[in-house]
Amino acid sequence: MAIENELPSVVLSKVAVSETHGEDSPYFAGWKAYDENPYDESSNPSGVIQMGLAENQVSFDMLEDYLGQHSEASIWGKGSPGFRENALFQDYHGLKSFRQAMAGFMEQIRGGRAKFDPDRLVLTAGATAANELLTFILVNPGDALLVPTPYYPGFDRDLRWRTGAKIVPIFLIFPRAKSIHLVSDEIYSGSTFYSSEFTSIAEILEARGYKDSERVHIVYSLSKDLGLPGFRVGTIYSYNDKVVTTARRMSSFTLISSQTQHLLASMLSDKKFTESYIKTNRERLRKRYEMIVQGLRNAGIECSKGNAGLFCWMNLSPLLETRTREGEVALWKSILHEVKLNISPGSSCHCSEPGWFRVCFANMSEETLEVALKRIHNFMEQRKTASV
Amino acid sequence: MAIENELPSVVLSKVAVSETHGEDSPYFAGWKAYDENPYDESSNPSGVIQMGLAENQVSFDMLEDYLGQHSEASIWGKGSPGFRENALFQDYHGLKSFRQAMAGFMEQIRGGRAKFDPDRLVLTAGATAANELLTFILVNPGDALLVPTPYYPGFDRDLRWRTGAKIVPIFLIFPRAKSIHLVSDEIYSGSTFYSSEFTSIAEILEARGYKDSERVHIVYSLSKDLGLPGFRVGTIYSYNDKVVTTARRMSSFTLISSQTQHLLASMLSDKKFTESYIKTNRERLRKRYEMIVQGLRNAGIECSKGNAGLFCWMNLSPLLETRTREGEVALWKSILHEVKLNISPGSSCHCSEPGWFRVCFANMSEETLEVALKRIHNFMEQRKTASV
Repeated sequence: MAIENELPSVVLSKVAVSETHGEDSPYFAGWKAYDENPYDESSNPSGVIQMGLAENQVSFDMLEDYLGQHSEASIWGKGSPGFRENALFQDYHGLKSFRQAMAGFMEQIRGGRAKFDPDRLVLTAGATAANELLTFILVNPGDALLVPTPYYPGFDRDLRWRTGAKIVPIFLIFPRAKSIHLVSDEIYSGSTFYSSEFTSIAEILEARGYKDSERVHIVYSLSKDLGLPGFRVGTIYSYNDKVVTTARRMSSFTLISSQTQHLLASMLSDKKFTESYIKTNRERLRKRYEMIVQGLRNAGIECSKGNAGLFCWMNLSPLLETRTREGEVALWKSILHEVKLNISPGSSCHCSEPGWFRVCFANMSEETLEVALKRIHNFMEQRKTASV
Repeated sequence: MAIENELPSVVLSKVAVSETHGEDSPYFAGWKAYDENPYDESSNPSGVIQMGLAENQVSFDMLEDYLGQHSEASIWGKGSPGFRENALFQDYHGLKSFRQAMAGFMEQIRGGRAKFDPDRLVLTAGATAANELLTFILVNPGDALLVPTPYYPGFDRDLRWRTGAKIVPIFLIFPRAKSIHLVSDEIYSGSTFYSSEFTSIAEILEARGYKDSERVHIVYSLSKDLGLPGFRVGTIYSYNDKVVTTARRMSSFTLISSQTQHLLASMLSDKKFTESYIKTNRERLRKRYEMIVQGLRNAGIECSKGNAGLFCWMNLSPLLETRTREGEVALWKSILHEVKLNISPGSSCHCSEPGWFRVCFANMSEETLEVALKRIHNFMEQRKTASV
């Protein structure tokens, strides 16, 4: 293989995308500040607390318990079957046992109100890959993806970079139209605080007798609900046969390690474990959510009502000097450098209204969350005093 | 996210690529014949023997021994450190311990004659992803990749499908030119029969004081040398800073499971193990190679001289009824349906001369290889008798 000397124009624009999505973005500047001065209860109690990371660390003990009791899921050696088969396994379909377990887990999360056919599951190395893969299949270069805001800032890079797609942020529910494909990103479906508070597009299709279902595709991953982003487990569930076939073949660029499929097939097909995990994980996330919402309220800050996930949205618009993006970024800088909290400004997620901030609460201990809430409380008190 | 109703034109061409690279290709037809009637020594001794799969199964016992003796590399549970860190790990750089072990392994394979900086290693979920990623970065849609033949038939799909690149098969060494990037695919570097028989582009660059090295990129994977295609471990080693940075960011679509990185970091940093593995694996592959070359010679068939890998190229051009691609495919069909061997016709790998066939020898036991050689011998005897 050999190609022309100078990086051609498309390449330069690719490099440019990767570079501009770097240093000048608040999203990344906050990470830098955290990396340089990370909070630690004993060694660095005045350091920056990372609240910009939608990571689920509240239920690791349950995963560790499972692994401790089921070493057959992860041990391989002489006499333990499975190593050779798994080491050699490279079928685009993925391990059948894993697809079955995954489909079952997705049904369980939805309280059995939707069915998933394992043969429609396409495995990818994470939801990032799943979303890009669907974009490659469904979108022509120059076509637009309509993405409801606020959305994950990474989409601006991930969905556009190699596909040539454009993103049009939308601020209202999208009108139902015949000519639209729908990609339903349900990566937090197992992190709703109550099972009943979430309606999957799969349930709607089931209730409608699968009418127009060939234009519906669901993205799911284990990074949020199980807290396993490092394992790179994503999936596309499509009701469109052509998309399933094409996505499966295209998944050759982004397959999941068979070692990881083997471990998770065992874990997710243990219904007693998954039932207990889903229930407990929900309770713990709800408790965290209530703790942060109440703590912020005590400090005089209101949050938008949420029913799922690893973060909340708080409204600091009363504190803005100017009701603009610039005003929001100025306030964000104060919070980062004075309060030493790395949170995400709404503008990085394309919020239409300035003054909203995303605050993650599941990537730290309860003790650290209390420290963070105390800092916010003090900050608000100072502001009050200063304005009197 | 939502998009237009009908699959647009680019999409249809993508679907078309995936479909035409299917049923009508000899490469896939052979697989189908094998799947429908696979050889088994006891239960199906007249079935098709799969010789179209460049898989290394000769050294699994050593990997199993290692795993049996080093359970800490794969066990995770209460009290075993590493699970939380690994589960959460999602840095594009990959685990530092794994990159270091991987760079060290690549040096060891080359007898210490080349150095690799772990910070220049970009990890990808397999060499398929690595090759596509480099194509995305270095090639504009419509530009050509010059690929020396015979080459892996999958390239026709993998390198063109989403990148818009073209492939121009080349039959001679490509002249050295200032305006050319070089991607050196070194996935068989640890499968050379003698260490001294392989010269990596890395050694040449080192000898030349890294002159023009910014146009050189190496692709490596553990699928062939360690026989681990299921684990999806590929890597790009680039001497160009911009390519390293961009490839690393772009690798977000194709990251390796941290569970697998953790296991392999342990395995590949154990120098005693890797030294013994590399030596023994080479000896076993060489033995297999000599066995098949000698067996074919006894049947009256000559092979092109090889010094590495999991297959050999045999010359059956004297048997062709017509010296054309059609003649080659006709002979290939006889071998598949009469001799019950699935081998690969050279035309599927863009060989310039008809009559050459690729025969894999490391994806089966020695006993099965003997059965295959006996079948070829009988086939050649019948041909001789028929022509007398």
